[in-house]
Amino acid sequence: MNVLLVHAHPEPRSFCAAMRDRAAAVLRSSGHAVTLSDLYAMRFDPVAKAEDFARRRDPDHLNYALEQRHAFETGTLAPDIEAELAKLRAADLLILCFPLWWFSVPAILKGWIDRVFLSGPLYGGRRFYDRGGLVGKRATCLIAAGSRAHMLAEGGIHGPLALVLRHLLQGTLGYVGFTVLPPFVAWHVPYVDPTIREGYLDELERYLKRLDALEPLPMPSLDAFDREMRPLSPHHP
Amino acid sequence: MNVLLVHAHPEPRSFCAAMRDRAAAVLRSSGHAVTLSDLYAMRFDPVAKAEDFARRRDPDHLNYALEQRHAFETGTLAPDIEAELAKLRAADLLILCFPLWWFSVPAILKGWIDRVFLSGPLYGGRRFYDRGGLVGKRATCLIAAGSRAHMLAEGGIHGPLALVLRHLLQGTLGYVGFTVLPPFVAWHVPYVDPTIREGYLDELERYLKRLDALEPLPMPSLDAFDREMRPLSPHHP
Repeated sequence: MNVLLVHAHPEPRSFCAAMRDRAAAVLRSSGHAVTLSDLYAMRFDPVAKAEDFARRRDPDHLNYALEQRHAFETGTLAPDIEAELAKLRAADLLILCFPLWWFSVPAILKGWIDRVFLSGPLYGGRRFYDRGGLVGKRATCLIAAGSRAHMLAEGGIHGPLALVLRHLLQGTLGYVGFTVLPPFVAWHVPYVDPTIREGYLDELERYLKRLDALEPLPMPSLDAFDREMRPLSPHHP
Repeated sequence: MNVLLVHAHPEPRSFCAAMRDRAAAVLRSSGHAVTLSDLYAMRFDPVAKAEDFARRRDPDHLNYALEQRHAFETGTLAPDIEAELAKLRAADLLILCFPLWWFSVPAILKGWIDRVFLSGPLYGGRRFYDRGGLVGKRATCLIAAGSRAHMLAEGGIHGPLALVLRHLLQGTLGYVGFTVLPPFVAWHVPYVDPTIREGYLDELERYLKRLDALEPLPMPSLDAFDREMRPLSPHHP
């Protein structure tokens, strides 16, 4: 399969970079084609802005999503966005590799999403979740966390990771149609000794080799909602 | 009181900009001092990177949080970070004004957080939540959402807004010690007619005039956890 590996860490010798390298090596040795977008190395510009659109649909008032759709339809996307979008659409599996900053992705990766997850081909109108543009593809995250595992668990001080990352796992990856796998997380990374970090990389290798056996995260289905996205059956909390 | 209003929208005539202007006017007319950080207008650089630190603690391996702490202690912060940090520390109330992009903040605002929410003065070690560096200050968000209100409610397709935004409201603002007020949200903004948007601005004015009466969002207390951040009493889900 085609894998797009998007990496977002400012230190080339970080543990995140080691996860990136191990992931690419394991996947390639299993016969997969791996494309890398190393956002810091590419000096990717994360700021969604008017200059992203050479020929505006509405030059007087910027509605970013509507201009995305227009630029896509007219073939006038900014070259850096077009290149990333092409990689994304060619991928069967998207992997985001990042350090957990403020319980989310670093800004450079947030901006990759803001600019590349295009209204039009990826979602729009009533096309999201199981009607999203990327239905049939899979996505996962490789995360380096400073926290200990019990701090991001049920009953933990921050709450369960999947809930804390809901904006990303469901609201972003699930929204555009990806089948989202449970993330791989290396815990307490800056504070553990090198043998534990080595162990994490071996664990990552096993994780990647059994991707097909992982149970995807549950996502909403539009089948359960009417045209105005009201639930078809009442909710019982 | 001193208010820091951080605004993140690429269109100067957006509804978000109207919220920003109404908020500043209402607060000033109530006698408060309002400082504005208009991130797009400032061309704020959201990318946390090695170049943020002129004199590195460790020139060989970038640990961003440790370099933040070192730069703060040695007075060698990058000028743009230092300026924003000074505004933040002088504020009694922080207001983030932004469009909801991917159930989170635009990258330019995420990067303002990544770079300005400094390890050291704002948090570190066991200083977070009710021990965070900004305890005693308040924060809130003014949000322009494309969704309808029922889509981000209990039982709604995306789930309740406060849960979807937990990474921001609790994991970021609460984490550094802010008392976090329930956000003000204008719903379905691109699709509603101008009179409804005007109504939102009047509603915003009433919201800002009764800030003191709002019940803050619940946050964890470190009192309930041991030194390793394990719950002192078992959790019953």
